Amino acid sequence: MHRHFDDEIKEVKTQLARMGEAAEWMIEGAIRSLVDRDTSNHEEIFKREEEVNTLQIEIDDHTVTLLALQHPVATDLRFLIMVSKIAGELERIADLAVNICQNTGFLLKEPPLKPLVDIPIMAEKARKMLREGLDAFVRADADLAQEVLDADDEVDALKDQIFRELLTYMMADPKAIQRALALILISRNLERVGDHATNIAEEVIYLAKGRDVRHHHEELKRKEGNEK
Amino acid sequence: MHRHFDDEIKEVKTQLARMGEAAEWMIEGAIRSLVDRDTSNHEEIFKREEEVNTLQIEIDDHTVTLLALQHPVATDLRFLIMVSKIAGELERIADLAVNICQNTGFLLKEPPLKPLVDIPIMAEKARKMLREGLDAFVRADADLAQEVLDADDEVDALKDQIFRELLTYMMADPKAIQRALALILISRNLERVGDHATNIAEEVIYLAKGRDVRHHHEELKRKEGNEK
Repeated sequence: MHRHFDDEIKEVKTQLARMGEAAEWMIEGAIRSLVDRDTSNHEEIFKREEEVNTLQIEIDDHTVTLLALQHPVATDLRFLIMVSKIAGELERIADLAVNICQNTGFLLKEPPLKPLVDIPIMAEKARKMLREGLDAFVRADADLAQEVLDADDEVDALKDQIFRELLTYMMADPKAIQRALALILISRNLERVGDHATNIAEEVIYLAKGRDVRHHHEELKRKEGNEK
Repeated sequence: MHRHFDDEIKEVKTQLARMGEAAEWMIEGAIRSLVDRDTSNHEEIFKREEEVNTLQIEIDDHTVTLLALQHPVATDLRFLIMVSKIAGELERIADLAVNICQNTGFLLKEPPLKPLVDIPIMAEKARKMLREGLDAFVRADADLAQEVLDADDEVDALKDQIFRELLTYMMADPKAIQRALALILISRNLERVGDHATNIAEEVIYLAKGRDVRHHHEELKRKEGNEK
């Protein structure tokens, strides 16, 4: 006996929402640990990454079961495939939070290189992109999804700014190099959080408008400037 | 009127094979341009990235159509979802090849920092992982897929080695910093190619054995060592 399809969809949505909250919490926590120089939340972050991994497998299994048993068509079908893709993006974001913790672990063995200003701003922007990407998905709000795409340019601009600033520290003092590198890698992790949020937003626009924006955005970006 | 399902599957496989060949060619070409200090193939690499993007959209549409019209169950269903996931991995690999070209573009404006030894070796290992991951998929060969997972450790070890070596160049000479950084970023791109090949291999093992290895591997890796 199968439950009603709408109930199943609701449950998958709940699973995805839990996954999204965990991923958001992990990014926020990883950056907080960096700023506060306090790794006491790392164990919890690592535990939640396992929770995210489990949720991804559950969502995937759930999606496949629904596809197999209910034969959804059109929008429901696209929706389920999209859920599976978004779960994949969230799982990668959780990995990035763990990477940030690992780089932070190294940084906290050394004295602070500089007061952190741009990295927390960048983290907040990336976290907001993720939150809004997920909200756009829940509400099928293509306009909000478009805002996420626009915000990605700001995150990339911050990444370049952080890179240039840290470069000056490295040039001035070889003892600063390793710490500056760890911060550069953290900013790259945050950039990738923004990229995953962008992927989520692109899926939302695709589902809402039936228009494939997935590669237009990145082509546009490439034309505008090169990787630094 | 629908074609026979097996013919459709065959066509999706062909599309994925073309995508895989393009991604492999792009990585190989991007590293060749770095080693030979010759950017004449970049235009072709950028063109092929667009081809890869188009193929991904085609594969996704094809998969959704097959799911909607044919209601496959069990293995066929898992297979189609897997095709869509592998296409996603290949698209990201193509992006990484473009990133490598962009960093190479910067490097070639400067005199060479050092003879490149480990980066071409790392690239060759990552490219081989990708090739074998795709071969394992085509032949549903879980043993070959397992070899891909094992090779990922070698790629990660090379990444650490490259990082440590370039660090010494940066410490010794501030004028080396920017070039060393570009090489570090290229090695990170190659690491991620290995990660995507690993994702493909994990899907193959999952499909072949019904056993979910997707997160076991990364947990194992995390226990073994931290991000450097």
